[in-house]
Amino acid sequence: MSLLIVGTVAFDELITPWGESGRIIGGSATYASLSAANFKNDISIVSIIGEDFPEAKLELMRKKGIDTSGIKRVEGGKTFFWKGKYHQDMNTRDSLETELNVLADFDPILPEKAKDAEYLMLGNLTPAVQMKVLKQMKQRPKLVIMDTMNFWMDIAMPELKEVLKEVDLLTINDEEARQLSGEHSLLKAARKIFTMGPKYLIIKKGEHGAMLFYGEQKFFCPALPLEEVFDPTGAGDTFAGGFIGQIVREDDISFKTMKRGVIYGSAMASFCVEEFGTKKLLNISAKDIHERVMQFVDLVDFNINLENN
Amino acid sequence: MSLLIVGTVAFDELITPWGESGRIIGGSATYASLSAANFKNDISIVSIIGEDFPEAKLELMRKKGIDTSGIKRVEGGKTFFWKGKYHQDMNTRDSLETELNVLADFDPILPEKAKDAEYLMLGNLTPAVQMKVLKQMKQRPKLVIMDTMNFWMDIAMPELKEVLKEVDLLTINDEEARQLSGEHSLLKAARKIFTMGPKYLIIKKGEHGAMLFYGEQKFFCPALPLEEVFDPTGAGDTFAGGFIGQIVREDDISFKTMKRGVIYGSAMASFCVEEFGTKKLLNISAKDIHERVMQFVDLVDFNINLENN
Repeated sequence: MSLLIVGTVAFDELITPWGESGRIIGGSATYASLSAANFKNDISIVSIIGEDFPEAKLELMRKKGIDTSGIKRVEGGKTFFWKGKYHQDMNTRDSLETELNVLADFDPILPEKAKDAEYLMLGNLTPAVQMKVLKQMKQRPKLVIMDTMNFWMDIAMPELKEVLKEVDLLTINDEEARQLSGEHSLLKAARKIFTMGPKYLIIKKGEHGAMLFYGEQKFFCPALPLEEVFDPTGAGDTFAGGFIGQIVREDDISFKTMKRGVIYGSAMASFCVEEFGTKKLLNISAKDIHERVMQFVDLVDFNINLENN
Repeated sequence: MSLLIVGTVAFDELITPWGESGRIIGGSATYASLSAANFKNDISIVSIIGEDFPEAKLELMRKKGIDTSGIKRVEGGKTFFWKGKYHQDMNTRDSLETELNVLADFDPILPEKAKDAEYLMLGNLTPAVQMKVLKQMKQRPKLVIMDTMNFWMDIAMPELKEVLKEVDLLTINDEEARQLSGEHSLLKAARKIFTMGPKYLIIKKGEHGAMLFYGEQKFFCPALPLEEVFDPTGAGDTFAGGFIGQIVREDDISFKTMKRGVIYGSAMASFCVEEFGTKKLLNISAKDIHERVMQFVDLVDFNINLENN
């Protein structure tokens, strides 16, 4: 099954209480595709990079089966760069530097093959860019999932709402769900967001887990308690990549499969945060993933002994 | 099976974005016992009240099967009173008034029968008072569970640590677990706390659920997503009451039963927050509880289709 991921391919530099990463690769499409690639799908990326992005890193992606032909390289241009510092609690961070560089003029042109993708994941980008991608698809994908953030709600809400009409599943965090809906209760927020277009909503709560809403159905998956969160960068995109990776692998968008997707996404995110950047994602096996998923099974397993009620 | 609950019986006055409660009954022992009483156990309370506490409210507890003979009434004294105002997000609150009144001189004297209790729950009180209770028990209860808060960590850490040595299960929130252990990772915090005495730890995360730790075993229970949190006062004590209520009902302290306890406790807490004070706790049936527990079963239910791995 074919999956198209549109998002950033970037450089990050991260400072955490545990150390400094130096300049490493990052970006929503990088994390999401490296995560989804573990599910052995036919994945292609559409993104933009500068002359400075190493070909060896693209080769690394291709070795994982990711088609990088849709990544436009701008000669003389510089790759999107973000430098951030995490606070002691690892839940909050300061942006130290943000250089949009070639991303400022990103006008996504889909390769012919990508226009036929059966599944589409729109990473966090300007809503106008997300819309341009949607308009190039030859037919409606089986599932369009989209990520966004409070920044676009602040400065481009009308455009964001236009894109939302075309989206099946939205992934945002709890504060963003509240901002988008104007509702504090996440249950009410979900209902309000469903009137904007999406039929499914995933609320990402970081260390507090993730919730999937579909109509009046709900599913909750905790985050795995970890010894240490080493670097949370990319965890949300890695989650989304694992989620859609599992959906595409099963080629099924039933609620049952989506629940499994949330578990696999959470498992992938739990790996992601254990090392700087994409390092861990590049070094896990199907067996590692299976074992991690089994930890989730175990974490929420209980039995209501009806004899005692 | 017999359960002794030691804690406050108090007056509260609550201001929330939804309204004002006026002066209503509250206190940790009140919430915990009314919650545990739904599990049809032999429950007695040890606490202290003033002349102003209405006999009719004690009668209400007795009707639920709670033995109130250990509640000392101080003639001429005034009952502990707390007035608080919740912020819009319902997660943070300001204390507007705190009158310790008779609680300032609380010197718990256990009735003879209470000294034989098989299960003991120490509500959030001065560690010195908690210790006095422990010393009066004729034999060690099958399980001693204790609640405390950051306030005691700030002003009475040495006394708190003495009590912890005698406790089997501690319930605190995530920030308190971090404060007590000096560890940010909850996994590491749990291990550290286990070296202080408790063998079990429940970390209460409010709207983000609850985690039970026992050795290297972990169990997570989400909070039920609700239409509206009307009044979170007493939710933690109600949780603890439901938890211990289920343990006592089964008369079993295996990890399996404790996991069920966490689910029942969470179900009771989800009722508690739907109305002001103890109102909802007084008006639920075994059927209501069963239906609510089934919502928890549903909320975390998923199936890992091994064919696809």
